[in-house]
Amino acid sequence: MQIFVTGGTIDKVYNPQSGELQLNGTQIPAMLERARIGGVEIELETLMLKDSLDMQAQDRDLIAKACEQTQHQQVLITHGTDTMIDTAQRLAVLQSDKTIVLLGAMIPYRIAHSDALFNLGAAMASVQCLPAGVYISMSGRVFPWDQVVKDRTLVKFVDA
Amino acid sequence: MQIFVTGGTIDKVYNPQSGELQLNGTQIPAMLERARIGGVEIELETLMLKDSLDMQAQDRDLIAKACEQTQHQQVLITHGTDTMIDTAQRLAVLQSDKTIVLLGAMIPYRIAHSDALFNLGAAMASVQCLPAGVYISMSGRVFPWDQVVKDRTLVKFVDA
Amino acid sequence: MQIFVTGGTIDKVYNPQSGELQLNGTQIPAMLERARIGGVEIELETLMLKDSLDMQAQDRDLIAKACEQTQHQQVLITHGTDTMIDTAQRLAVLQSDKTIVLLGAMIPYRIAHSDALFNLGAAMASVQCLPAGVYISMSGRVFPWDQVVKDRTLVKFVDA
Amino acid sequence: MQIFVTGGTIDKVYNPQSGELQLNGTQIPAMLERARIGGVEIELETLMLKDSLDMQAQDRDLIAKACEQTQHQQVLITHGTDTMIDTAQRLAVLQSDKTIVLLGAMIPYRIAHSDALFNLGAAMASVQCLPAGVYISMSGRVFPWDQVVKDRTLVKFVDA
Repeated sequence: MQIFVTGGTIDKVYNPQSGELQLNGTQIPAMLERARIGGVEIELETLMLKDSLDMQAQDRDLIAKACEQTQHQQVLITHGTDTMIDTAQRLAVLQSDKTIVLLGAMIPYRIAHSDALFNLGAAMASVQCLPAGVYISMSGRVFPWDQVVKDRTLVKFVDA
Repeated sequence: MQIFVTGGTIDKVYNPQSGELQLNGTQIPAMLERARIGGVEIELETLMLKDSLDMQAQDRDLIAKACEQTQHQQVLITHGTDTMIDTAQRLAVLQSDKTIVLLGAMIPYRIAHSDALFNLGAAMASVQCLPAGVYISMSGRVFPWDQVVKDRTLVKFVDA
Repeated sequence: MQIFVTGGTIDKVYNPQSGELQLNGTQIPAMLERARIGGVEIELETLMLKDSLDMQAQDRDLIAKACEQTQHQQVLITHGTDTMIDTAQRLAVLQSDKTIVLLGAMIPYRIAHSDALFNLGAAMASVQCLPAGVYISMSGRVFPWDQVVKDRTLVKFVDA
Repeated sequence: MQIFVTGGTIDKVYNPQSGELQLNGTQIPAMLERARIGGVEIELETLMLKDSLDMQAQDRDLIAKACEQTQHQQVLITHGTDTMIDTAQRLAVLQSDKTIVLLGAMIPYRIAHSDALFNLGAAMASVQCLPAGVYISMSGRVFPWDQVVKDRTLVKFVDA
């Protein structure tokens, strides 16, 4: 299984010097250690560490290229929630025979009551169960990428 | 989706009077609230609160009956890890047309570095993705119930 | 004992709609419940919920007036760390016969590895042990208000 | 400042192999790192790792000897709550000119809603503020050792 890290809320941490949340690394290895993974080979690569509102077309091209080049058939991508669907749309153009699942979090992993660990578990199961395609795994659901919207009031992903 | 609670490590809490871990309720609603479930109707029922080493044949009969009677096609069961596979075997006898996924935790939800939230996410995705059958969702995997063992040294579920 | 809440990092919580940390209440009652206070009557009042960089002279006057008016001899004040010493200086003008201890946190209570609970414990002990005066209780120390500075690089309070 | 670790609930961790809480090290350095200690030299030594119900007279003699021999005037001792007062009584016999403060926790540091970090903060402030003597710092209070009891129903330390 390939995991690509691109940034987003899931990985934001508090900087006590500035008093701001920021991206300066990834929490995914810490989360995987907690998950006690049994018999899945995981290759993790950080492609970028961006707030998804700052992602440009070239960032999405880079993610798409990484998906094409990985040897793994199962691909997880951690991503900010605001433009996760835009990236999924770009990846759908690949018409890849791989199963690609995007996930993120509404509350950073390091903040109380985060959904990050739940979402990583859901995405990891989804990518192993589903046929080829591009999916969004959020809010306890696995959505085909073109059948989902982020409800910014409820702070949930729901059916489009 | 139906969730049946039966106890196990996932729900153990610390009793400061006795200094012991004990089962006296379920953490699943708190975990679901964190998960920000979007558009899944969940019916939760506590069937029992037992350490799975204390489960008898009649407990497994009761769980089997509950699986038969629920109106939902997707059934999650929280369960202690020590005899989770025994219960899965009992449920397989039903030859149900439902998708039944058992999950638990190696570290209680309320203790640091718990795998509980990850496992609930994985199980919830699995039960939505998989065809009818009885499965164990642990350690970042979804195993058909008869192809898995608990490795008590590694404290992981792995391929049988 | 009187506790006055004025805001600051200690009470900041994550708003998943905006993706920002904000002040919209106080975590102090939750922290006190964890502390299992034995035989101390505590009166808690929220005077304001401000980032301490936004505090004006009139805010400090309001805090000073509250310190004068409370019936309690022991006064704790939660406060942002950036101008905590400025407020302490304003309170020293009162030449009160009360023991007044200011505290805050470098990392919000609701974020991993917060110092908030430690600091509340230290301040609560300090206010019970010390003679009349105005003190800063941070970084595992209790400083007379005019013998301390915030080291913004180390993110600690140290001797002036 | 000297910190002596002796075990007790504060340091208990979950063993996922056995499903039991156990003592196999100390969480105090992790707690001190969170506390961002500013300008206090701390020497930490683990004397033993025992549930305080298992402590014998010889254990208390060992702790007393360590208090006598340390060069530091300020001594913190982490200890199980069940016999903390017994050890304090043994230490009072020393009639030491040092300030000795015992602390522990009702819920282990690694379990949700622990009082451990609060108690360590309170004890660390107490030992810096108080004159020579032997004290118990628990439940948001600092008690002279002979004026306190553990209320096992409320799970708090209160006035004797």
